[in-house]
Amino acid sequence: MTTPAYGVDLGQLLGYAFEPFTFHYAERDASLYALGIGCPSDPLDARELRFVYERSGEGFAVFPTFAVIFASQMIDRMLTGDLPGLRFDPTQLLHGEQFTQLDAPLPTSGAITCRPVISAVYDKGKGALVVADVPCFTDDGARVAFHQYSMYIRGIGGFGGERGTSVEIAAPERPPDAVVAQPTAPTQALLYRLSGDYNPLHADPLIAGLAGFPRPILHGLCTFGFAARAVLRTYGDHDPARFRSIRVRFAKPLFPGETLVTEMWREPERVIFRCLASERGEVVLNSAAVEIA
Amino acid sequence: MTTPAYGVDLGQLLGYAFEPFTFHYAERDASLYALGIGCPSDPLDARELRFVYERSGEGFAVFPTFAVIFASQMIDRMLTGDLPGLRFDPTQLLHGEQFTQLDAPLPTSGAITCRPVISAVYDKGKGALVVADVPCFTDDGARVAFHQYSMYIRGIGGFGGERGTSVEIAAPERPPDAVVAQPTAPTQALLYRLSGDYNPLHADPLIAGLAGFPRPILHGLCTFGFAARAVLRTYGDHDPARFRSIRVRFAKPLFPGETLVTEMWREPERVIFRCLASERGEVVLNSAAVEIA
Repeated sequence: MTTPAYGVDLGQLLGYAFEPFTFHYAERDASLYALGIGCPSDPLDARELRFVYERSGEGFAVFPTFAVIFASQMIDRMLTGDLPGLRFDPTQLLHGEQFTQLDAPLPTSGAITCRPVISAVYDKGKGALVVADVPCFTDDGARVAFHQYSMYIRGIGGFGGERGTSVEIAAPERPPDAVVAQPTAPTQALLYRLSGDYNPLHADPLIAGLAGFPRPILHGLCTFGFAARAVLRTYGDHDPARFRSIRVRFAKPLFPGETLVTEMWREPERVIFRCLASERGEVVLNSAAVEIA
Repeated sequence: MTTPAYGVDLGQLLGYAFEPFTFHYAERDASLYALGIGCPSDPLDARELRFVYERSGEGFAVFPTFAVIFASQMIDRMLTGDLPGLRFDPTQLLHGEQFTQLDAPLPTSGAITCRPVISAVYDKGKGALVVADVPCFTDDGARVAFHQYSMYIRGIGGFGGERGTSVEIAAPERPPDAVVAQPTAPTQALLYRLSGDYNPLHADPLIAGLAGFPRPILHGLCTFGFAARAVLRTYGDHDPARFRSIRVRFAKPLFPGETLVTEMWREPERVIFRCLASERGEVVLNSAAVEIA
């Protein structure tokens, strides 16, 4: 047996363009995603019911952060070790940060083509930070969304790349302008995963234990969806057309069944926020902001 | 404008055999159904986790009452007025009783062909009781499940058919041998409907109001699934292979968010049960029994 040659070949990895892939979805998939992020809080409120009910009087709408599901296949390819110049232990991959921008309201169903490119690779000493830019296009070639996934991979630093800088979105000193509490269900991760992230870390008590957790953790992007709902509800009247972008850092995991508390500060250009696991008082998302039109 | 000619033509309707249809499903669909009926109660209990997690250590299993989803297309055809000799206002259709028998554990994915036949039509005076027998077969021709759907249609009685008899399964006089309480989520119907019953009565506050309900009601077959879980947990250690059959009468609707209480009596041949909406003390399912091996 030989030890797998884990590491980064910067020349091969940086600038690597994935073979484009197409994600197909129906209204049922968008509804399932919305239920996965806890929508609706009130099943009688038409403003949130429209994200899960295809004949809603308000018109069916896709919740904006559903756009992250388009890129599921990219994450699968990274985890199965399919990228040139990148060899790593998949249990050492952490989703560090996520930026998602909406160019237009998402179609209620259809086919979306993603064209991911590895836009940056930083040498953090102990690990590597790999950044993927993912523009997403409808059939007619219009861009509907753009993502930036920052993935931190432990154990493969020291390859001689740039260290990079990190941008911190600091919460203002004043108390939050608004606070929203959202319970999650004990089955939240089991529901969310049906939208396409089947990592056993979120379902299997044994695998979660091997990864050092007392039980399965909620998907970071599920917590991200709850937070997006909290901000859009507070500052955008649930209107998906007003949602422009969201940026978060994944600080700690939330456990299914915990209550997520989102603290928000209304600034001129954006809503700065952070999220805590209410039962533990620990910050789970920070360096975070949403732009609302 | 003419009034639609509602009514029954017994000669055409009785014995009518539907064109066979095939239902396709994947593990994701079976998982989604299980979540729709509140499974798992404890996400760390492998005996229920196996119904929603495809890499479960116990082996993935399909919850037995998923078999009712196979026949969704038959209900759609009845509601769209596609049956010879039967014309009715679809808002007047009530699911009266359901019998479901399992011949074998359900495949974890695949294609199931249903061959429904209208086996009985009774003239109840004010309405008609239409009974459909639905045998369900796998690709290799083996029968895996058999259903009997009894649908009561208000307003089209008096066509001169037999009145029929109804079989009552009476609960014993003694106090129940076991009682299980199961909370349902306020979003339960919105989740359950993604398994194939998109009747707006279960999602749309306006439509529910027109039908005389204060808010959308839970699907009878969703309540049925919760009850099946309660009995299998109590008398079958959650083992799907031991589930033989279930029979219920739909007495009253449950509202999403209410707690379902299942009272059970262990008899030699079967478990007799009834279900109540705990908050109202009203019986929602009765004349009900499960056979467990």
